[in-house]
Amino acid sequence: MFDPVEKLKEFIRHPSISTDPKSLEGMRGAQQFVSGLLGSMGFAVEVVATPKHPIIYAERPGDPAWPHVVIYGHYDVQPVDPLNLWQSPPFDPAIRGNRIYGRGAADNKGPLMANIAAVARLLEKNPRIPLRITFLIEGEEEMGSPSFPAFLEKFKDRLKRADFVYLSDTALPNEQQVVITSGLRGLALFDLHVAGAKGDLHSGLHGGVFRNPIQALAEICAGLHTPDGRVDVPGFYDDVLDVQPWERDELKKLGVDEKRYAEFLGIEAFHTPPGYTPAEAVRFLPTLEFNGIGGGYQGEGTKTVIPSTAFVKISCRLVPNQKHDRIKRLVMDAIRERAPKDVRISFVDQHHGDPYVVVPPGRSNTPPDQSPVLARAFRAADAAVAEVWGRPPLYLREGGSVPIIAQIKRVTGLDSVMFGLFLPEDNLHAPNEGFNLDVMRKGTETTERILAAVAAG
Amino acid sequence: MFDPVEKLKEFIRHPSISTDPKSLEGMRGAQQFVSGLLGSMGFAVEVVATPKHPIIYAERPGDPAWPHVVIYGHYDVQPVDPLNLWQSPPFDPAIRGNRIYGRGAADNKGPLMANIAAVARLLEKNPRIPLRITFLIEGEEEMGSPSFPAFLEKFKDRLKRADFVYLSDTALPNEQQVVITSGLRGLALFDLHVAGAKGDLHSGLHGGVFRNPIQALAEICAGLHTPDGRVDVPGFYDDVLDVQPWERDELKKLGVDEKRYAEFLGIEAFHTPPGYTPAEAVRFLPTLEFNGIGGGYQGEGTKTVIPSTAFVKISCRLVPNQKHDRIKRLVMDAIRERAPKDVRISFVDQHHGDPYVVVPPGRSNTPPDQSPVLARAFRAADAAVAEVWGRPPLYLREGGSVPIIAQIKRVTGLDSVMFGLFLPEDNLHAPNEGFNLDVMRKGTETTERILAAVAAG
Repeated sequence: MFDPVEKLKEFIRHPSISTDPKSLEGMRGAQQFVSGLLGSMGFAVEVVATPKHPIIYAERPGDPAWPHVVIYGHYDVQPVDPLNLWQSPPFDPAIRGNRIYGRGAADNKGPLMANIAAVARLLEKNPRIPLRITFLIEGEEEMGSPSFPAFLEKFKDRLKRADFVYLSDTALPNEQQVVITSGLRGLALFDLHVAGAKGDLHSGLHGGVFRNPIQALAEICAGLHTPDGRVDVPGFYDDVLDVQPWERDELKKLGVDEKRYAEFLGIEAFHTPPGYTPAEAVRFLPTLEFNGIGGGYQGEGTKTVIPSTAFVKISCRLVPNQKHDRIKRLVMDAIRERAPKDVRISFVDQHHGDPYVVVPPGRSNTPPDQSPVLARAFRAADAAVAEVWGRPPLYLREGGSVPIIAQIKRVTGLDSVMFGLFLPEDNLHAPNEGFNLDVMRKGTETTERILAAVAAG
Repeated sequence: MFDPVEKLKEFIRHPSISTDPKSLEGMRGAQQFVSGLLGSMGFAVEVVATPKHPIIYAERPGDPAWPHVVIYGHYDVQPVDPLNLWQSPPFDPAIRGNRIYGRGAADNKGPLMANIAAVARLLEKNPRIPLRITFLIEGEEEMGSPSFPAFLEKFKDRLKRADFVYLSDTALPNEQQVVITSGLRGLALFDLHVAGAKGDLHSGLHGGVFRNPIQALAEICAGLHTPDGRVDVPGFYDDVLDVQPWERDELKKLGVDEKRYAEFLGIEAFHTPPGYTPAEAVRFLPTLEFNGIGGGYQGEGTKTVIPSTAFVKISCRLVPNQKHDRIKRLVMDAIRERAPKDVRISFVDQHHGDPYVVVPPGRSNTPPDQSPVLARAFRAADAAVAEVWGRPPLYLREGGSVPIIAQIKRVTGLDSVMFGLFLPEDNLHAPNEGFNLDVMRKGTETTERILAAVAAG
């Protein structure tokens, strides 16, 4: 008998931080754990080598005429710093109340395990079910999936034969209301470096005669937003898709409580562009954020230097139909143009991904042009969610990014059904990441029903 | 026979980083080395305990009627990071050409050793010379001399009996031209912390709805200077002493080559307030500098968080007659007033010190009101420098800070003769700190002559 929670604990114990060169063993362990699990379920498992971390591609043998779902997930996790803020060790899973804690519990090991469990049960109950299932589980999602494009090119002919992609790597607003994600933000990330004098200098002997690179960096960063919270880069909003009336309707049904949201974040006040509520801004507007800044002396006490360099890590979240390469160019051009001319600036390109949008049947006035199996999957999701959770799902774009969803669409034509399972309190990418075990159970049940309905035709 | 270079090597080998709790052994080693050396020269050495690092107070026995000089120095050094930029290990002194490299070589172990060597030779040649000499050598200069005020209170009656303070902890503009420092900048240091959400948050799920603390910090920092390079804080310049005509004359004689200075710094352009050359700005104007900034993810690759907090380390250099407490209050008030109201700010006070100025005899049109022994010391310095270096000294205020000089003046009434020995290329507070051995030799010779002349009366 397949015990999803015990399997999830085992999964979490592998410290699979893909961006950390010291985590190679944990990466290998997580990969072998998943491969072994799928193999034991009768899947033909291929471990596809990449320049960094392999991709697991596991197929259930079957008739080519059957409906075909590709279930996506990732076995890598975010770094764990600051470690001192964790209540229990990040790779030693702990259950407190109805929650399991550990790095990756919610992103993406728990939700992925729910989907693996759903398939295990489906096959247990009906070993001959007419459904082709392919698991596609990567190990580089948290580093921006650098090997995924080459993998897609290599596997595109096999993938094109499928009907749709199914995944649980998006959010649930609360335990009552399922949201199926109809759109994702894209990403454009880079670092900006500012250099002043050729070395660190004594702030007494030389202070006051040239521009401190921290000051130059602050001036640049402070100029990238308008006082009312918009990104102050020419052309930045040119390609932003207008919000559709049905999307605002769905969001109204969700009924976001702004006071509670502010309390949850622990902020003094929201700061959104004019005309957008926080719930709208996070779904329908692009951003420019500073993820990290550094320069000079950061230790205890003081060191009276003028640092030689300073840097900031910038990420833009993109919405349809913005393109990552154009946005990077616009932001870098604006920085180049505005930067003080007495410092030297340079950029280090990081990863990126385009945004994505899919329109479910029965929401928009204009019926979407999509495959019958995909439409059937959406309708099955409507029914299964209503049965398991007591309410039909809402279809909403969300603020997060799964850049490979747009890549899959572009290369293979496949759309995705994104049935999210992590909650706002799950602390993704932060200390004390956790996952709700009731949600896990209901998610497993829902996915099992959706897949059964897709197979039933 | 006293070999100053060998003694200096031994001194440098003690890693005496006063701000580093892990350097206690190095601190103790440096203190015991200096105490032992002075003891062997016939001084009565007192090691005065403080809450952190002891002060060495060593007196040459003598007649109370003799002229009395207090020679100041410090045995502690700056931290060594970034360690990878050092060509040789910071605490393993290396001689390359006519320079000795190591942390503290120039600040202050080399110059202090020159003065100890001068006294050793003076006493060797004339063991009965009618001069009272007191060494006052502290171990907390690089952390802002926190224990010095209490020490001064305790020792003020003994110190008041002296005539003047003599020290070599200031700069020489080049090997040809000695500058005796007639003024020092003060310091006012504090950290500013900005806090946003209660924890680090996922920049996709929550990005775009509230102000990122790095952005708030950048906005605050960018607002603290005017575009033309002045500090943009109301009242900041109120108490700045006008530059005296004789000071501009001395600076003209120095003849600063701005092109070479810019090349030495490795900067694209100077950025000084209107009406001041770089050489004037660094001596006669106050500053507000950012010594370090930090927040969010600073490692390799990316981490798409909105950090909960960010901070900056701020230092103001002050000129006569600014007061450190008033300046801190003005800057903090300006920050409080201007900071975005949707983030929380807080300050961590660091150390401070008031600026100092002394007028040598024969420069100003208004003869200074000072003790005859001090005036004699200045005249002896004029003569000794002219003999040893081939040119008389210039008297100039400098940009660095030795806050205890102003404290000594305030508590004991003693003025200081600051005969600087470190060169611009000595990399103070930076990797590859070094000290010129020719300068060391000439400095020793000059100090010996000055002290002999003071004793001769």
